Amino acid sequence: MDIAQLSDRILNADRRALARAITLVESARADHRAQADELLSSLNKSGRQALRIGMSGTPGVGKSTFIETFGMMLVGKGLRVAVLAVDPSSARSGGSILGDKTRMERLSREPAAFIRPSPSQTHLGGVARRTRDAVALCEAAGYDVVLIETVGVGQSETVVSELSDLFMLLLAPAGGDELQGVKRGIMEIADMILVNKADGDLKSTATRTCADYAGALRLLRKRPQDPEGFPKALTVSAVEATGLDTAWAEIQALAEWRRQSGHWDRNRAAQAQYWFAEEVRQALLARLDTPWAKSRMTELSAEVAKGVQTPQAAARDLLTGLGVTNR
Amino acid sequence: MDIAQLSDRILNADRRALARAITLVESARADHRAQADELLSSLNKSGRQALRIGMSGTPGVGKSTFIETFGMMLVGKGLRVAVLAVDPSSARSGGSILGDKTRMERLSREPAAFIRPSPSQTHLGGVARRTRDAVALCEAAGYDVVLIETVGVGQSETVVSELSDLFMLLLAPAGGDELQGVKRGIMEIADMILVNKADGDLKSTATRTCADYAGALRLLRKRPQDPEGFPKALTVSAVEATGLDTAWAEIQALAEWRRQSGHWDRNRAAQAQYWFAEEVRQALLARLDTPWAKSRMTELSAEVAKGVQTPQAAARDLLTGLGVTNR
Repeated sequence: MDIAQLSDRILNADRRALARAITLVESARADHRAQADELLSSLNKSGRQALRIGMSGTPGVGKSTFIETFGMMLVGKGLRVAVLAVDPSSARSGGSILGDKTRMERLSREPAAFIRPSPSQTHLGGVARRTRDAVALCEAAGYDVVLIETVGVGQSETVVSELSDLFMLLLAPAGGDELQGVKRGIMEIADMILVNKADGDLKSTATRTCADYAGALRLLRKRPQDPEGFPKALTVSAVEATGLDTAWAEIQALAEWRRQSGHWDRNRAAQAQYWFAEEVRQALLARLDTPWAKSRMTELSAEVAKGVQTPQAAARDLLTGLGVTNR
Repeated sequence: MDIAQLSDRILNADRRALARAITLVESARADHRAQADELLSSLNKSGRQALRIGMSGTPGVGKSTFIETFGMMLVGKGLRVAVLAVDPSSARSGGSILGDKTRMERLSREPAAFIRPSPSQTHLGGVARRTRDAVALCEAAGYDVVLIETVGVGQSETVVSELSDLFMLLLAPAGGDELQGVKRGIMEIADMILVNKADGDLKSTATRTCADYAGALRLLRKRPQDPEGFPKALTVSAVEATGLDTAWAEIQALAEWRRQSGHWDRNRAAQAQYWFAEEVRQALLARLDTPWAKSRMTELSAEVAKGVQTPQAAARDLLTGLGVTNR
């Protein structure tokens, strides 16, 4: 593969080249990894930056409809929009590509939009590292906004927040004690809560739900990266396309404040350092990925769970088997 | 050191032997680590279990007074109580021992109580692993309750929750918009919120604060380990020793429900597996602890932050230097 040529085509916003490059960075083959690193280093020089928006929402909240309507609004404003996904549970078949394009039918037909499903790997860490590469490729291809959505399986929201400039949480209206449970820990990373379905019969419920979440947000400690009034809770309706302009204005205001105050650059620098350390750590921990190590670790872990061995003794046993004596 | 004799003395509740054993497990010397592993494996056979209570509280909330009063109440009920601390910022001098005993003057004089300050290591991971060993030693010495307190620096509450059967958060009363910020993510691990200082002028404020936190807890997703009504918010007064009996009754009810439902054993087994994996991971990552690796990592991390190198290229550079080629 001619990496210099691929790099040029991406810089010229060639969507087929972009799709091909994402396939390259997702490959686990050693020669592909080396080519991917070369491509990313080459494109790194472009200095182009998109607004990276992380997004999560519980199933049934209308996330696809929201992304479609929100994405169409941005395209209508003359912006180019990429949609990526982090879903460690996604099937390995090609089916999810069709799925993603089907559920965002109008957006997928827009020349200014690019939609790519989650890389199909079983480990969240691997999915996230390869999605980070895909974000960098979309930025080099000149997209203005990169939406990174996740279904919120396990730690995926935390990981997506390490890929994003800001993080939105999409929630559904709920009454009184039926208030849907927000996953513990998610409040930690939300910059904005959007209560969807603020239309028809649910409109007043959505307004009350929004006030409840605003109250819960006020109970949390203020973070340095939050200007006055953030994190914020707003109501939107994806089907009626209302509240989206306000949400976009708030997103831009937050992004602008963070750019001016230096938090944007500091966050990007800290994220790059996080992913550097993560690449190093994962390479060192790869010694546990051999069939022998996996099987021995499973055996020892079962003994530890039963209380037959202490964690310390079991660790010493495994490490001796791996030839590691630097405890 | 005669490990068999030390083991026997600990099983016979000899406090001096317990203190000596904790010093042994805190040592970084390779021969001490081997002796510590032998001691822990030997004591593991006792099968004794304490109720491990993790605890955090913001400075000024009255945590020392609470632990002293709560501990004295437990001692009054005929229970033996150990108090351990996880504080990665604690000074390396022996001063903090005096500090801990001074701030819990009555409890430290009780023959049924054992107070030990945080091990003095700079890394939270190291502090936590050695505190876990100390918890195991206290259990073997027959303590009924082990209180593990933390100041809530960085991730220390999450780590303490991996050492505990249940986790309490001690908060101060606060009015209206002055509500103190609860660290984001802490709600994830709290089994019980105690609003302290429910006495004198602050009594009604404490009641209102407690109701606010109860409302915030209801907005969070229910966890499998929570019986009906948990996590719970209660008011207490450490100086007047009120509400402590109720808090203890709730703790016992929660612990009993978890024992009956199997969550207790499952949690302990999962924690042991967590610490086994953690011991293994830390040993593999110890390759980064050499002076060369640290200095090279710092250099590369600075380049990554400036955007001069991609995280991937920098990682490849460091790993090549370490002779690791299994990416």
